[in-house]
Amino acid sequence: MKKVVVVLSGGMDSATTLYQAIKDGFDPYTISFNYGQRHKKELDYAKELCENISINHKVVDITNLTEVINKSALTNADIDVPEGHYAQENMKITVVPNRNMIMYSIAIGYAVNIGALAIYVGVHSGDHAIYPDCRPEFISELDKIAKIANEGFIAEDFTVKAPFLNKTKADIVRIGHELNVPYELTWSCYKGGKEHCGKCGTCVERMEAFELAKIKDPTLYE
Amino acid sequence: MKKVVVVLSGGMDSATTLYQAIKDGFDPYTISFNYGQRHKKELDYAKELCENISINHKVVDITNLTEVINKSALTNADIDVPEGHYAQENMKITVVPNRNMIMYSIAIGYAVNIGALAIYVGVHSGDHAIYPDCRPEFISELDKIAKIANEGFIAEDFTVKAPFLNKTKADIVRIGHELNVPYELTWSCYKGGKEHCGKCGTCVERMEAFELAKIKDPTLYE
Repeated sequence: MKKVVVVLSGGMDSATTLYQAIKDGFDPYTISFNYGQRHKKELDYAKELCENISINHKVVDITNLTEVINKSALTNADIDVPEGHYAQENMKITVVPNRNMIMYSIAIGYAVNIGALAIYVGVHSGDHAIYPDCRPEFISELDKIAKIANEGFIAEDFTVKAPFLNKTKADIVRIGHELNVPYELTWSCYKGGKEHCGKCGTCVERMEAFELAKIKDPTLYE
Repeated sequence: MKKVVVVLSGGMDSATTLYQAIKDGFDPYTISFNYGQRHKKELDYAKELCENISINHKVVDITNLTEVINKSALTNADIDVPEGHYAQENMKITVVPNRNMIMYSIAIGYAVNIGALAIYVGVHSGDHAIYPDCRPEFISELDKIAKIANEGFIAEDFTVKAPFLNKTKADIVRIGHELNVPYELTWSCYKGGKEHCGKCGTCVERMEAFELAKIKDPTLYE
């Protein structure tokens, strides 16, 4: 079976991406990042999700990066996580400068290192409004630069796969439901408390997705 | 003065790049990486070079990445650093998968974080043969993706500047000599011993550059 690297946050989208990679017939190597996010808890969920189906999982600690990149509510404890809808303007404070480019670059390095044929990432259309590094233009450029940066060292048909790039989060829930993704083993809440807060942008988006998909939400909200 | 981020390895090329950024009229913020390279010594040189002219300098430790990227003679103590000419085929073992893309992505994140107008990188034509992530195609794609990945958060006229992209290392020495770069405060040798070994690819390249430029080499070789 051909190897692929799956970037796994511990949230619903990347969990579904992992199950999609398996369905696509690949041998997935998952990678998660500790980048100083307050909801570090998602990493325990990523770990459990992988252990649950015996999948190779690595966590790379890049918290040192906060020394040069520190202006996001997600990684700076002095800045409050905003409440409200995920697509609102005030969510911009949750942007970590160049985050996906950094993480995906590392994932691509990992792919080259183990001779993987692709990286799988879980971005979807609901991310586009707030996060410029989740848009189709970005994924398409990433695909190009990965091949250029590693020419001679990477599979010629290497690709960046974003199976849900033009899907909504509700679509993802529907697809994941078919794939038997155990959503109780995923974490979304940006606040990273004991349970999902139910109020921050990503909690609101999570609840909405299950509602729209008409699928029972297994999440316990505060 | 407008800020720029300069990626500084501690070697000759990036030292000259820093001096070029100053000459271009920018306020440089330098960033170096500890990526588990055996010639970690270059970081002390980078530090001294910056202290010498009171320039802001950050070192980011990304050695954790060796957990997923470990197939290079530069970072894996079990693999010997090859001797001979820098442009030879056997130098390929010194390639760290996706290294520049990872480091430059972090530098771009830093630039966004501090509102810098550009990143400066020291790649040159002599690197092209061995390192795919030093070629003009890569720099040009990086410039594009940086703007896409950070749209709305980055200066609209943000650029990736590689002033020596089509220069030889001898050209760099000549330019640096004009700019009064203190080359005695730079380190090249991949082996990272007490003095420059004079035999590894990068030592051979360093000696050759001074010779071709007809400028006195201040380096002490073993």
